[in-house]
Amino acid sequence: MELTPVTDLPEVRPGDDLAELIADRADDLEGTVLTVASTVVSKAEGRTADLEEYPVSARAEEIAAHIEDVAGEEKDPRFAQAVLEESTELLVEAPFLLTETRFGHITVNAGIDRSNVPEHDLLLLPKRPSESAERIRQGLEDRGHEDVSVIVTDTSGRPFRHGQRGVALGWAGMPASRDWRGERDRDGRELGVTVQSVVDELAAAANLVTGEGADGNPAVVVRDWEFGDLEGSDELYRSVEDDLVRQALREWRFEP
Amino acid sequence: MELTPVTDLPEVRPGDDLAELIADRADDLEGTVLTVASTVVSKAEGRTADLEEYPVSARAEEIAAHIEDVAGEEKDPRFAQAVLEESTELLVEAPFLLTETRFGHITVNAGIDRSNVPEHDLLLLPKRPSESAERIRQGLEDRGHEDVSVIVTDTSGRPFRHGQRGVALGWAGMPASRDWRGERDRDGRELGVTVQSVVDELAAAANLVTGEGADGNPAVVVRDWEFGDLEGSDELYRSVEDDLVRQALREWRFEP
Repeated sequence: MELTPVTDLPEVRPGDDLAELIADRADDLEGTVLTVASTVVSKAEGRTADLEEYPVSARAEEIAAHIEDVAGEEKDPRFAQAVLEESTELLVEAPFLLTETRFGHITVNAGIDRSNVPEHDLLLLPKRPSESAERIRQGLEDRGHEDVSVIVTDTSGRPFRHGQRGVALGWAGMPASRDWRGERDRDGRELGVTVQSVVDELAAAANLVTGEGADGNPAVVVRDWEFGDLEGSDELYRSVEDDLVRQALREWRFEP
Repeated sequence: MELTPVTDLPEVRPGDDLAELIADRADDLEGTVLTVASTVVSKAEGRTADLEEYPVSARAEEIAAHIEDVAGEEKDPRFAQAVLEESTELLVEAPFLLTETRFGHITVNAGIDRSNVPEHDLLLLPKRPSESAERIRQGLEDRGHEDVSVIVTDTSGRPFRHGQRGVALGWAGMPASRDWRGERDRDGRELGVTVQSVVDELAAAANLVTGEGADGNPAVVVRDWEFGDLEGSDELYRSVEDDLVRQALREWRFEP
């Protein structure tokens, strides 16, 4: 497996065609996996916003005050309002906002980015990342690049372990995971591992070569890797019934 | 970045020298990252066990009954006993056992594997995975392979997202994460991403090329990747104060 960043992408602007920008700078994409950072997908889709666009609701006011109270850190209630508008469920409101985004991803501040965006205050996540991935995949196919899988990626923290790692937000041209159920080990025993989240592993791998910030390359081509013959699934985000941590968080409130 | 599995490793047995087995089958390791699956590390370290070695405590009896009650699935109390003996804290006891292992990793069943082990019932995780990684690193250096970083890996599920992905259990020769704090984007704004868990990303990447079971290759060489000049940290496992999910789980009990 080989990962190569797509270099020399220009600063992406609203309306830019990412498939074209990438196809102009990468050869021989047939049969590869292409990862694209959600920052540039959001920029191309015009998902920028300004704090003044968010008139503050009573709930946002309350959350900002709660965070200030327990974290001792000033929180702009307009930012809390923006997070609420991007979310379908608030899992933790203090000392930081952990929510489920409209498309199912659970992350801090609904993934809203306050760096990496010129001329605006906020960069929101793509609205439907799998649809974004499919548009890029189709755009590449239209330019003759057949059989490319596309993953829209982000970085995100997680429980139990420090630090952030690359994760998939949306994907097209391949399933999200492969299912090893029923496969056997050398001694014929059934494997303990069942479902392998390959889109997250590809996103994590790509994040090792993108870099960040001024030297960042938001798109990465993965060659010599194949999904293979196993069954695939597109379930990536857990349902509530299948997520004990989410159930526990619903019943919990931070006490400093 | 390029990932290549080390092929033709034999079935690993207690007392085997993994550094030797790998060095005999991989050239040009200088400056690479080597990932090694915890299954073979455990086998080399003799971390197999049998259920009959676990006389059942009252607590293990209670846990097995609780799991049977809520999950409707028969649970061997000796297995619950084995999980307790490998753990320092029980975070969830039903419908499945989620614990913190002695070395800080939070996973289901303390990572005990019931497949992949011939002639025994159980394969336990390595006792001190970073010490295991350091022994392999030192063994490679003794054979003239300078500047190799070693990561002991496993696969593990996670909250919020379906499926398993590769994670690091221990590491040597490099820090666990790199710290982007203070770095700036193209417009001079400070980056939102702060700490990048590179050992987990490398473990996830490696898991894409190891395969599983009968066709699995437990060791992978990562070439053309560098940690770089950023500050590093060896903190991977969150402390309790820094882990809201763990705090929430402590106060929660599954109600079917």
